[in-house]
Amino acid sequence: MKHDIPSPPRAVILLSGGLDSATCLALARQQGFECHALSVAYGQRHAAEIAAASRVAAALGAHEHRLARADLGQFGGSALTDPGIAIPEDREGDEIPVTYVPARNTVMLSMALAWAEALGAYDIFIGVNAVDYSGYPDCRPEFIAAFQAMARLATKAGINGRPLTIHAPLIGLSKAEIILQGTALGIDYGITVSCYQADAEGQACGHCDACRLRHDGFMAANIDDPTRYRTLP
Amino acid sequence: MKHDIPSPPRAVILLSGGLDSATCLALARQQGFECHALSVAYGQRHAAEIAAASRVAAALGAHEHRLARADLGQFGGSALTDPGIAIPEDREGDEIPVTYVPARNTVMLSMALAWAEALGAYDIFIGVNAVDYSGYPDCRPEFIAAFQAMARLATKAGINGRPLTIHAPLIGLSKAEIILQGTALGIDYGITVSCYQADAEGQACGHCDACRLRHDGFMAANIDDPTRYRTLP
Repeated sequence: MKHDIPSPPRAVILLSGGLDSATCLALARQQGFECHALSVAYGQRHAAEIAAASRVAAALGAHEHRLARADLGQFGGSALTDPGIAIPEDREGDEIPVTYVPARNTVMLSMALAWAEALGAYDIFIGVNAVDYSGYPDCRPEFIAAFQAMARLATKAGINGRPLTIHAPLIGLSKAEIILQGTALGIDYGITVSCYQADAEGQACGHCDACRLRHDGFMAANIDDPTRYRTLP
Repeated sequence: MKHDIPSPPRAVILLSGGLDSATCLALARQQGFECHALSVAYGQRHAAEIAAASRVAAALGAHEHRLARADLGQFGGSALTDPGIAIPEDREGDEIPVTYVPARNTVMLSMALAWAEALGAYDIFIGVNAVDYSGYPDCRPEFIAAFQAMARLATKAGINGRPLTIHAPLIGLSKAEIILQGTALGIDYGITVSCYQADAEGQACGHCDACRLRHDGFMAANIDDPTRYRTLP
């Protein structure tokens, strides 16, 4: 079977509505891709992120934006999906934080792979970051490389000899570097939501891990933080 | 962080309700695993399979059975999820059949991986078969090996040095060999549903690809086919 490559080429962009994935979408657009943005509802508490994803997709010129459910919440094991586990206010040493969601990036990339194959897309973008999330096994470059190797065997595309690429353009950047890149691309980070416990209006708590990383990033980049915090970090 | 291994060891078994995955569950039980059966609702037409999965889980002594949704149907591209694509009655040469669902096994294994990590399980069973489904990229041994390599990097377990194993015990067997193994283990295949268009009572159509493969398997194994067909294959 022949696979014609659409022009412009299509890419699937995993879009959470946070700062990193918004930057990823802007980078994919800059590279000339027709961007198909995918948000995965995996049972996370922070539903405000998904509302933010719709705003980000529209603001950054995604061709379309879809929401797909993948029911990880029922398995538990994470503060992001289990209301019985408190979201910590500080990093706890070298332990993997309780905000880690088992196999989340594997599941999200797999969903993106399914859509990519149906679309005839050979490029998937994910905004993982190995610097800020050094404790997360599925944010490491070796994980991304292994997923790509698997994905190239998993689909018809692999059989047809046109390899699929998993792009993780932020993987080696600091939060400040990400913010500087995105700002140069014209992103209004005020519409993104990173907070693990944002309210329905997208207001950030100001004291969880994600808020601190984000605010420190703006400080280090010497750029005004446009985030609406309930209490300042 | 230390991970204590539960005793008996736990395994996640992907259970569709069909003949292959039922055999897989029986094999995992025989190997001494506490079996956590997972059915993934990915938008398939054949909802009767999921009802069958509950019967199979109970009959074969699964410790528990869960249903998780992973919303692949909206992406289209398969006769199993798109009512606009007819289910073929015959194999069409060497083409990958329209019943192939993009990235289905990748998504189902990823969901199983998420549950395995939350459970402290290091073993996942999937009933893929490279003989009958030679056209499906994600039924090949090299795909399973690549998924396992990726999975070992994707989770805390990988970081902690205890490797995860993806078991595909049926991958090299013919349908008749699978049926002979399962029958020796005492499986009543009458409660399983393989048909792509079974009715609500689990009655099989008798003429789709899955029905033909199944019936031919019983014939080749010289075992009475207990399937309730609407019309005989």
